[in-house]
Formats: sequence, structure tokens, C-alpha cells
Amino acid sequence: MNINRNYLNLQDSYLFARIAKSVNEFKAQNPDKKVISLGIGDVTLPLSKSVIAALSAATLEMGNAETFKGYGDYEGYAFLRKAFCDYYAGKGLTLELDEIFVSDGAKSDVGNMLDIFSEDNTVLIPDPVYPVYVDTNIMAGRNIVYMDANDGNSFKPLPDKNVKADIIYLCSPNNPTGAVYNKAELALWVEYALENDAVILFDSAYEAFVCDKSLPTSIYQIDRAEQCAIEFCSLSKTAGFTGTRCGFTIIPKALTRSGESLNRLWLRRQSTKFNGVPYIIQRGAEAVFSPEGLAEARASVAYYMDNARVIADTLTKLGIEFTGGHNAPYVWLKCPDGLSSWEFFDKLLTKMNIVGTPGAGFGKNGEGNFRLSAFGNRDNVAEAMKRLEENL
Amino acid sequence: MNINRNYLNLQDSYLFARIAKSVNEFKAQNPDKKVISLGIGDVTLPLSKSVIAALSAATLEMGNAETFKGYGDYEGYAFLRKAFCDYYAGKGLTLELDEIFVSDGAKSDVGNMLDIFSEDNTVLIPDPVYPVYVDTNIMAGRNIVYMDANDGNSFKPLPDKNVKADIIYLCSPNNPTGAVYNKAELALWVEYALENDAVILFDSAYEAFVCDKSLPTSIYQIDRAEQCAIEFCSLSKTAGFTGTRCGFTIIPKALTRSGESLNRLWLRRQSTKFNGVPYIIQRGAEAVFSPEGLAEARASVAYYMDNARVIADTLTKLGIEFTGGHNAPYVWLKCPDGLSSWEFFDKLLTKMNIVGTPGAGFGKNGEGNFRLSAFGNRDNVAEAMKRLEENL
Repeated sequence: MNINRNYLNLQDSYLFARIAKSVNEFKAQNPDKKVISLGIGDVTLPLSKSVIAALSAATLEMGNAETFKGYGDYEGYAFLRKAFCDYYAGKGLTLELDEIFVSDGAKSDVGNMLDIFSEDNTVLIPDPVYPVYVDTNIMAGRNIVYMDANDGNSFKPLPDKNVKADIIYLCSPNNPTGAVYNKAELALWVEYALENDAVILFDSAYEAFVCDKSLPTSIYQIDRAEQCAIEFCSLSKTAGFTGTRCGFTIIPKALTRSGESLNRLWLRRQSTKFNGVPYIIQRGAEAVFSPEGLAEARASVAYYMDNARVIADTLTKLGIEFTGGHNAPYVWLKCPDGLSSWEFFDKLLTKMNIVGTPGAGFGKNGEGNFRLSAFGNRDNVAEAMKRLEENL
Repeated sequence: MNINRNYLNLQDSYLFARIAKSVNEFKAQNPDKKVISLGIGDVTLPLSKSVIAALSAATLEMGNAETFKGYGDYEGYAFLRKAFCDYYAGKGLTLELDEIFVSDGAKSDVGNMLDIFSEDNTVLIPDPVYPVYVDTNIMAGRNIVYMDANDGNSFKPLPDKNVKADIIYLCSPNNPTGAVYNKAELALWVEYALENDAVILFDSAYEAFVCDKSLPTSIYQIDRAEQCAIEFCSLSKTAGFTGTRCGFTIIPKALTRSGESLNRLWLRRQSTKFNGVPYIIQRGAEAVFSPEGLAEARASVAYYMDNARVIADTLTKLGIEFTGGHNAPYVWLKCPDGLSSWEFFDKLLTKMNIVGTPGAGFGKNGEGNFRLSAFGNRDNVAEAMKRLEENL
């Protein structure tokens, strides 16, 4: 019996678990302090009225033999995939129902998608990056090539013709940096992927935060992306579903590799290792895409983007450099006074009782940077910014 | 770019997807026929009153900022793991909270658990078997050794000292055969696993259907199993959660391989590739373990076991041999008249408008056998049995 020894190459503990541990220890030792989290990126606004109404109605259906639902389709109920298609039609994009897979969140599908690719593929990952992209590939023992995201390229690395990669991770608007690719930049990536027979795994979890209408909110707004990209979508931030768990994965039928349809391979994966998202939750997700639900979701996004503005204004006043905060719910700042990112984490936690996310947790280029999230409630964000102004 | 070519070694379509396709085609061509499904093993009774009340209350919590829940613990809320601990205490077993992982169903965890094991492990799988065990290992390219389950061993294969295996799948009460291991038989498997440094993946999804109190309902009722077994538990059949999605996986802290804690490796896997079960669903699951919830679940199980008795009585009357139907919700019968199992499937579907599951879909030893499930509603089961009596 051997375990998967690739796991031993992982860093000791997943970033957010390590943060949670530090915070819990601090709280236990300082029960009187009010700790404000601008850290993990969890939302704070409750589910909207439309969603609650739909969840409640679906719950009652499950209590009645006439309307009870057992196993659903592995790829999700057609009613929900239809609602999601309509949402994409609003972006000017036409999807077929069987190009959409309902998921229990983008994180699961981003990780599990690797099942359908060979382990000898080379993976291209930006640094800094959402740790899940890295860790899931370390677990499979894949060769990882990093591309630097830094001040020099405004945290938006572009293809390097000298680098050969098979799987490319892009996240735009970006977590953690808040950077957003424009259409011309994404077109370079599509061109690179097509030339290299590569597949782009495009994480669009933050698309709802794009305010500038010239910026893309889906990679399929780029010509020929349907031949080289899989897109991961989430209701976590768009509609407050972090604890409710629903997302979507798009695999166009035009996307083939080694002569095989990736859509068909993924359906096989999901029908074998997944049994779908709860019916109740799928009804709640459907309500997000109703006219009322969309208006409510937009109001939540606007609330968080106002938080981002408050954070950005404070940092500007303090003379701290940052990116993000526009078209993205994350603000990515340079740690003041030459502190390392974990030192700044400790200073914020112990002196100001604010939780943020150390840039080093996102990769080597993250060192010296720090992520603040705009998902707090308004009063907490304002109080946290007051503490920053008083202490920095 | 290479795909995972192991996928090309899979049979064309997952068993239940193939059945669904046949049934949908038949229904489209015969819209006037009333098709009764005793096939996929989906439940028909609605969620119980306690569960609905808990789901409804939790939904309202999610609509209020004060009680809203975002990301939960990767391993599930403590309140639910505590409820599950108490349930196991009722079996005379002591579990610690951090030995329990809340899942979105046993199927997901049975499949994903393989991530933590090396791909060069040899896997021992009974035949016939739940196809997920086989397909998930084919996807990873593992060497599979089959053990025959047949009339000769009452569909309960026992260890063969000449066979070396690293990972062993056991399911008791068994899907598809309805066979149930006794404690002495399971003790032989624990002994074999310990001698071979192997790990048993024990699927106890049907434990609630065991009526005979001398039979084990958890592998941990066998001495030293905590050193060699992972147990997968589900609310799908126990409490009608097939469309609600919640289960539990137990990895004892005493279980180490290659000097590593499998519990710790799994936590790492889940915190990287999973974001937990919806809060609302976890509250619903908690209610299953309340005194009222347990009484309701027991009543559902009794209802289904009465169905099993009706099916068993009919087969006895028709002189058709079968196993299962006692201590298990499945009846596993010999196809009459020498028909193959897909021929019998077609005959049942087209002549009697009954859907069952062909034994061949569960492996070579399944050929000539057929699975009927007791999860239908009473009237449908009675009508299906009437059709059988008239046509066989």
C-alpha cells in the first residue's frame, strides 16, 4: 500500500486554514477584541428575497410525495441550465444546454477538472495565484511552470512564445490581485492556446464585479475561445452563495483534444464521481437569474464595490500603493514599511484586529503584498479603515 | 496536450445513464404506458416532517444578515458531526468529531477518496459490484483484481490469501445483491487487510436496512477495523436524501499508511478540492438524527422493507430464485427462461413496463441476474408484481 506521495510535496496547510488557525488562537486569547475580517473573501450580505422564496418553496416540494425529487441529472436540472443560458445570452453569447454543468462551486470543478487530463501535461500558472490551482496540480504530480504577475505587467502576464504549456489557468477579474484582462489581452491567450494545442481553464468567479463595459466578462467573448477554453462560474460572490454552494462549468462542444470531446469526458467524470447539486439549491440558484433576482444581485455587488471604494480611498490617503478595487472586489496593496506579508498580517491582526490575506500565500510574487476583500459589511469596513488610518 | 487516456478504457456509458436512455426512448414512443421503475434505486417517500422543518428554518436564517452563513468548515459543521457521533454511539461505537467528514453523498467520496492513494496500488473489487468502484479505478489506470461473488459463496466473497491487494471494496448490505456479511466474515476481511497493509473502503449506505440485530451495521464493530478501514455513510436511502445530497465519511485517526495519517491527507484533499455541503442541507441532515427524525427515518425504512417482502413473496410464488430482500432493500433474482440480463430488462420494459437493473451492468457474475429495488411506492410495487405474475 502506497499513499499518493505527491501530497507530501504540498505545503503544510492550505492558506485559509492557516489564517483561520491564527485568527482563532488570537480570538481565544483576546475574547474582548472585535476582530474584523477582510480576509478569506467570504460574503456578508444575506441571500436575497427571491432566492429565499425559491429555496423555501422547493423545500416544501421535497416534503410532498407528489412533488418530491430524488436523483436529478448529473449535469444539473434543465430549468437551471436554461436560466444560466439566458444569462449568457445577455452577454451576447449562445450556449447550448448540454454545454453547461451545474456544480457545487467553482472550486470543486476547477480541482476535479484535472481528472480528464493526462498527468504528463505541463501546467502554466500565474504567480501570485489562487492556491487551489497550484495545490491540485501538485497533488497529481504535474509539471508546473509559473508566469510572473507583477508591477511590470500590471499583474496581467501575457503569453511567452518560448514557454510550452498544455493547461493554462487564467482568472479575470483576478483573485488575489484584482487585475482584469481586456479583450485584446485575452485574445493573445486564446491565440497562444490554439497554437499550442493547450486548454485554458478560465475562472470567471468575479465577472459580476466588472463595471467597465469594454472589459470581457466571459472568455467566450473572444473569437475561437470555444475551441480552447473551459469557463468556471460561481454564484458565491455574485449572489452570496459561499455557504449555499452552486456554480456552473461551461465546456463547449467545439472543444476537443486528442480527438475526444472534453464535454463528453467531463460528463463521464461527473456521472461517475458526482451526484448533482441538491434540488432545493438548484431552485434557489434559478431565482438568482429572475429579473428580481438579478436586480437584487446587482444591488449586492454595488454594495461591495462601494466597500472597495472606501478601502481604495483610505489607501490613497495613506499613500499606500495598490491595484484592484475597480471592476474587482479585491484590493491588492504593497505592505508598508518593508514588512513581509505575514509580518503585516500579524501587525494587522494583533494591533488593529483586522484580518487580511498575506500575499506570500498566493506565491513568491505575492511577497510584500497583501489582499483586502470588499466583502465585509459597511460598518466593519469603515471601522477597519479608521483603525488603519490611526495605526499606519 | 494529452487527455487522460484511461477514460477511453471505460465502457461507453455509465450503467444508469444507459438505462435512463432506454427508458426515455420507450416512454417517448409509448406515451400512454405507465412505466414503473424498480430500477435505479431512487427513493419515493418525501423528506420527513422534521427534516422539512429544519430545512425551512435554516433557509430563513440564510435570509437574515444576523444568522446568515458563508463558508463553513471544509469537513462540515460541528453540530452535524456531533449528531452523527451520537448516532454511532447508539451502535456502541465512539468516534471523535475530527474523524468525521460531511460529504455531498457517499458516491462523491468513494470516488474522490482514491486521490490520496498511489496509482500503483492494486485494487480488489467484488463482482458483481456497484459500477462506481470499478470506473473510478479505471479512470486512474489502477490494476484491478476481481473476486467472484456468486451462488457458491452466497454472494459474500471471503479473502483469498494468495491474492495481494492494497485497496479493498466491501459493501454490506450489498448493492446489488442484497447480501449481508456477518461479524465473523467481516473479521476475516479485517485480518486480511491488516496482514497485507491494505485499506478497506467500506460502503455502509444501506446499514439502516439491517433488521437482524446480530449483523454488523458498521465495520468498526469489528476489532481493529479502525486500523484498516474507511467507512462511507449516506442519508440517501436512510432518510430519502437522494436529491438532497448529504453523507458522511469516517477516517479513524488510528488509520495510517506509509507513516501518514489518512485522515490528515483526506482533510487536505477536501480543503483543496471541496467547499463543504450547503448549510441549509446540513441543518436538514442534523434533523434526521433527532429523536423525531430517527423515528421518521425508521418508519420509511420499514415501508421500503415491506415492499421488499412483497417482491420476495411474488418471486417465491413464481418459483424464481433470489437473494437479498431481507436486511437489504434490493432483491437479486435469477433471470427466468435463461434470458440474459439485458434481454430480461427489455422484456420487463416493453412487455410489462417495469424498469429494473440488468445484472450484467454490475460485472460478469451479474449476467443472468437482475436487480429489483424496494424503493418504489407501495401501489406501484404491488402493480408491478401483479404484472410479473400475469406475464411470467
